[in-house]
Amino acid sequence: MENFIFQNPTKLIFGKGMIAQLAKEIPAGKRVLVTFGGGSVRKNGVYEQMQEALKGFETVEFWGIESNPKIETLREAIKLGKERKVDFLLAVGGGSVIDGTKLIAAGLLYDGDAWDLVLKGVCTETLPLASVLTIPATGSEMNSGAVISRKETAEKFAFYSKNPVFSILDPTVTFTLPTWQVACGVVDTFVHVMEQYMTRPGQSRLMDRWAEGIIHTLVEIAPDIVKDHTDYDKMAEFMLCATMGLNHFIGMGVCEDWATHMIGHELTALHGLTHGATLAIVLPGLWRTLKEKKMAKLVQFGERIWGITEGDDSTRADRTIEQTEAFFRSLGVPTRLGEANIGDDTIDEIERRFRERKVAFGEDHDITAEVARKILENCK
Amino acid sequence: MENFIFQNPTKLIFGKGMIAQLAKEIPAGKRVLVTFGGGSVRKNGVYEQMQEALKGFETVEFWGIESNPKIETLREAIKLGKERKVDFLLAVGGGSVIDGTKLIAAGLLYDGDAWDLVLKGVCTETLPLASVLTIPATGSEMNSGAVISRKETAEKFAFYSKNPVFSILDPTVTFTLPTWQVACGVVDTFVHVMEQYMTRPGQSRLMDRWAEGIIHTLVEIAPDIVKDHTDYDKMAEFMLCATMGLNHFIGMGVCEDWATHMIGHELTALHGLTHGATLAIVLPGLWRTLKEKKMAKLVQFGERIWGITEGDDSTRADRTIEQTEAFFRSLGVPTRLGEANIGDDTIDEIERRFRERKVAFGEDHDITAEVARKILENCK
Repeated sequence: MENFIFQNPTKLIFGKGMIAQLAKEIPAGKRVLVTFGGGSVRKNGVYEQMQEALKGFETVEFWGIESNPKIETLREAIKLGKERKVDFLLAVGGGSVIDGTKLIAAGLLYDGDAWDLVLKGVCTETLPLASVLTIPATGSEMNSGAVISRKETAEKFAFYSKNPVFSILDPTVTFTLPTWQVACGVVDTFVHVMEQYMTRPGQSRLMDRWAEGIIHTLVEIAPDIVKDHTDYDKMAEFMLCATMGLNHFIGMGVCEDWATHMIGHELTALHGLTHGATLAIVLPGLWRTLKEKKMAKLVQFGERIWGITEGDDSTRADRTIEQTEAFFRSLGVPTRLGEANIGDDTIDEIERRFRERKVAFGEDHDITAEVARKILENCK
Repeated sequence: MENFIFQNPTKLIFGKGMIAQLAKEIPAGKRVLVTFGGGSVRKNGVYEQMQEALKGFETVEFWGIESNPKIETLREAIKLGKERKVDFLLAVGGGSVIDGTKLIAAGLLYDGDAWDLVLKGVCTETLPLASVLTIPATGSEMNSGAVISRKETAEKFAFYSKNPVFSILDPTVTFTLPTWQVACGVVDTFVHVMEQYMTRPGQSRLMDRWAEGIIHTLVEIAPDIVKDHTDYDKMAEFMLCATMGLNHFIGMGVCEDWATHMIGHELTALHGLTHGATLAIVLPGLWRTLKEKKMAKLVQFGERIWGITEGDDSTRADRTIEQTEAFFRSLGVPTRLGEANIGDDTIDEIERRFRERKVAFGEDHDITAEVARKILENCK
């Protein structure tokens, strides 16, 4: 096991009716910038519950943080927040709204252009931020990461600031989600877990078991929740899995990969493809490319999750990859570049970008631009 | 899934050589009361590493916090801390030292006798406390609980204050532990997990999987670590399991039992029996008594942990209980009252105490004094 330092101070407030807790959790006297996405919270009751809970607080609303939040939009929010001298932020929405609000929280204390902060990658000077989560997927509600896009250059980069002080997760708000978002959220959670699991074998038995525990749960509930999003217990389980998939609880003492995400971000930046869908395409291609290196873990995963116990290791690894791709397809998500109308020109462009940035992804920093091209060729 | 609020702010600093981090983690200028047990830290190198790291801090040492820490001892530490005007506490030892130091941290800000705080059960006014853990078992390094005994009345009660600000876990310091302490630490961790797991079925698939993940890991490593405590990776795994077994990570949205602990505390209070050993005696007896009620979970546990798939549910539950008791015995820990020379008079006394206190333990608050007697009869 590698040495590690773990700390996750976010207060998780979970369950039906918990949005009312906002009133208790935000310190009295705060001037709150409340941020939203496109307006679905007006239809599912979240907006009313939030308004009711925030009576007595001075609030400023900012609407329109889009999927894959754009710096162009966030600059507007920072401008508004500075004008209105807010001192607390509340993100109400999915991972994109929370991610965008993390940059706003940092940008409000920064004099220059907030894109500088994204390029810098880390910023710990921020206003306090909390969230009401509406889409289980990114884990942003209980971690410090955010991914921000820039429209004019079709770029998408990760940056890290502080965890939300608290996050409220009420599973009933997920009942009205579109099926596509549920399916992509399942894939996103699945791949977050894999980025922390499918690396070197034998690092931690416990972390392996916990990662597999999230996957077991997802695999059990996914067929039901993509059909019907109104079963409270199953949607609660999904919501909990998504948060636990990326809050470092399964990453103690183990190395991490993240190459699937880095390649996926480029597909979103260049084509606007939903994040979860990019991961369902890249992960199986990455596994096909790095099968030899990841063999021991692929075999363990195949046996414990898919029950694959026959054949030699190579055969078992192949079957594990096939079964995982079949699982993604069963959710209605594409798993090949062609299905998303992405051709060779995109592979060329991603290779060019990675070469220019001199990338070296993966648990051993050996996924260079050349390897990324091979992976993308294996996603055709 | 039940509604829940989860927060665990403790910073976990884990790995070889990490005691040196003390210098960075304690705020500059603090006057630190450092608390110890009986002196084993002088033999295993912990004391030297701590002294080296704390150069530059003003420190006051308090030695002699015993197993099942006594209020009589802790009063002395509180007196010393008040005299020397300390403003930070560092517990260096196992769960007993950390538990005792939690009461000292509260007692230093309280004018009356600290036993009042124990009887009150909850105290959130405390000085900041951190720990360097030397014995994996209680989980006290990452939770807010403590158990304090009173010699003159042979009483032992739980009380809750604040989590350690940080805890340093270096697996190498466990290499010199006596086998008995390793064995009892395994049992303690096992039973902590069971108190949160062996209740109502179908509350959370994920929490079930995570609880089972800790048990799978313990069952895999236990035969080796009770023989040889010097394998770094296995002792690291054990240390991580013990912390994760009682830091609320496996308790989200599920009910809890804790009757085994409450009965076990009485056996320690009356006979001085090691905490872990009391649990190995009580848990199988409790399961035998409440087999019908806990049937579904016993069957699930038996199948997933012990591979028991044959027979009807009742047979499978019986075999699960037998197998669990056999596991405890394989560690060299007694599992029957007679082996610890505990007779009927103790059963009478515990029933009397529980009747007087009008107890109602268990996930459904139905384990009264009468039921506790039945459980103890089933531990013979």
